[in-house]
Amino acid sequence: MSDIAKNIAAKLIQRPSVTPDDGGCQNYIASLLAPLGFVRTQVDAGDVINSIYTRQGELGGTLAFAGHTDVVPTGPVEQWPYPPFSATIVDDILHGRGAQDMKGAIACWIAAVADLCSSYTPMPTIQLLITSDEEGESVDGTIRMVEYLQAHNKLPDAVIIGEPSCSEKVGDTIRRGRRGVVQIKAVFHGKQGHSAYPQDADNAIHRATPALSRIAAIDWGVPATGFPATSCQITNLNGGTGASNVIPGHCNAFIDIRYNPGNRFEEIKAAIESACADCDVTLSFDHVATAFSTADGPFLDQICTSIQRIAGIETLRDTGGGTSDGRFLAAAGIPVAELGTTNSTIHQVGEQVALHELTTLTAIYTDIIKHFEVQP
Amino acid sequence: MSDIAKNIAAKLIQRPSVTPDDGGCQNYIASLLAPLGFVRTQVDAGDVINSIYTRQGELGGTLAFAGHTDVVPTGPVEQWPYPPFSATIVDDILHGRGAQDMKGAIACWIAAVADLCSSYTPMPTIQLLITSDEEGESVDGTIRMVEYLQAHNKLPDAVIIGEPSCSEKVGDTIRRGRRGVVQIKAVFHGKQGHSAYPQDADNAIHRATPALSRIAAIDWGVPATGFPATSCQITNLNGGTGASNVIPGHCNAFIDIRYNPGNRFEEIKAAIESACADCDVTLSFDHVATAFSTADGPFLDQICTSIQRIAGIETLRDTGGGTSDGRFLAAAGIPVAELGTTNSTIHQVGEQVALHELTTLTAIYTDIIKHFEVQP
Repeated sequence: MSDIAKNIAAKLIQRPSVTPDDGGCQNYIASLLAPLGFVRTQVDAGDVINSIYTRQGELGGTLAFAGHTDVVPTGPVEQWPYPPFSATIVDDILHGRGAQDMKGAIACWIAAVADLCSSYTPMPTIQLLITSDEEGESVDGTIRMVEYLQAHNKLPDAVIIGEPSCSEKVGDTIRRGRRGVVQIKAVFHGKQGHSAYPQDADNAIHRATPALSRIAAIDWGVPATGFPATSCQITNLNGGTGASNVIPGHCNAFIDIRYNPGNRFEEIKAAIESACADCDVTLSFDHVATAFSTADGPFLDQICTSIQRIAGIETLRDTGGGTSDGRFLAAAGIPVAELGTTNSTIHQVGEQVALHELTTLTAIYTDIIKHFEVQP
Repeated sequence: MSDIAKNIAAKLIQRPSVTPDDGGCQNYIASLLAPLGFVRTQVDAGDVINSIYTRQGELGGTLAFAGHTDVVPTGPVEQWPYPPFSATIVDDILHGRGAQDMKGAIACWIAAVADLCSSYTPMPTIQLLITSDEEGESVDGTIRMVEYLQAHNKLPDAVIIGEPSCSEKVGDTIRRGRRGVVQIKAVFHGKQGHSAYPQDADNAIHRATPALSRIAAIDWGVPATGFPATSCQITNLNGGTGASNVIPGHCNAFIDIRYNPGNRFEEIKAAIESACADCDVTLSFDHVATAFSTADGPFLDQICTSIQRIAGIETLRDTGGGTSDGRFLAAAGIPVAELGTTNSTIHQVGEQVALHELTTLTAIYTDIIKHFEVQP
């Protein structure tokens, strides 16, 4: 079983697919899945290739796997121990861009399905939702497939995302939710003038600093269970003309908020506006990502049980890290769990994955599929 | 008398002397003063020409006139109604760079002295302290002459500076002091990190904004009589890498303080340090200019009396505006008064002065010299 996942992972890595390029990966996946009875539906948008591969099962439910074939750029190629798209294997290690994030996990899912389709019954309906737009803008990728599935009444009952969720060992961590992201541009307005004549001017920096201090000190309340606290960071601040003696008429701030599901966007917007109430300020809000959380229940329990059965370890149900495409699926009401390899080298020069991780992950995916049950 | 001042002013304007260039002005002045009995001492420093012209008088006291031959750049020449160094006279107006600031006033002083030296006795000792470094750095100009006079025990008893002090009419305003200037660079230190992981970082902007708010809110107390309040302006503020999701490790602020003699530098420094007491911050203080104020007394009274006698108007004893070379003379304990033409076009495209102002100013200077008395 390990050889199948290893070979598929190597073939995917050897197809350079720097976001949003697919590099032929999804056609290759189609060539693997078609003989197993999967039908491919392309939901391309812009420069992005999105593929929904579906195999009708004997059971009533649908279990989806979501992933992305695009990878981040290599960085300086000369610093890689092996060429980043060579998929060189040395001892137990497969080297290459995408090894952990997340061509390895895609390979494991395909290996699991290939094994089960030829040997096991009854199977649930299986979907693979594969995009080439996760590492980039994420505007023409998974969300387009969710829209398609909604329009055709084909949303799955649950989804596993192959993001590299684990810390030390495969199975030690799943992500059951992510914080949301709100980004805000604030322009504080004053009146420019000479610093020797302050009575004729209105210093925009003096207006901004008390408001920004209030924003930095906002109490966001008790975080939702299992989530880190909401974090509000002023990441950029610029005021002044560069001249030493000019009172600035404008001061610009950029605020990056990572919020847990215990907060809502409307509440965040109101808190920021309130902190700026005494300022002449222009606030532009961008709700980049909605927070999501899959509740404890049979789906997460079953995944953890499979991990325990195969790997013999306890699983942390985590919510850390940045954004993921899970938010688009969760927003459609689908239980989401992210489970992949470890993430020690993702986005780094010299990305790599241990082959024994692919073996374990393939076995866990296989066990999850075999025990999948639709909840009433 | 008007013709003499007018002709000297025109000749000075026709010698382009953009700071710190002298353009031959001080040699020209020497050629006018030598026949009157003045001895010239050059105290050059760096690229700057400084001339002390002295004529021994019959009276015991020394009255100095301080001024500068350098001018600010012309700006776009094509926007001038007449070429800026042509000294074109149309009707009552002399056009050219330096007409008000301050070749006109230098010409009036020379015209006054020329008249008196040939017709009046007893005269005080007269010094002219002329620099070519007032509009620029002001580091190699008047201060070098003050150092020379101190070293040779030749400091004057009082000084009139030809800065264009007047608003509507010649004589309506003298400056008897100026605010001081303190400029501060503040670098607030934190620890850079990812905005999704605030627990591993320390946002330098969040450290800076409360401290800067406290600085902007410092109560500087009741200003010294006749002075505007101390003004503390944060003129530049920069933090952040430009990336939206990086918590900045540094935040830089520039603070420009114009203080009245009711405050002292040491007190200002302590107040800023106190406002930043809870921050990891590097503060760099630059005491650019010391505040000065000439007390009410016989010297200012006599100037105002001369103005009343010649022009028939009341004089405002003002302390507004930016810095002037008066601070170097006042720091040596010399009573300082700034009295020149009006200042409606200084530093502007199309600088000009009315010829009748030169007539009036020459008459006022003449009257001041005639009535000058050393105070015990």
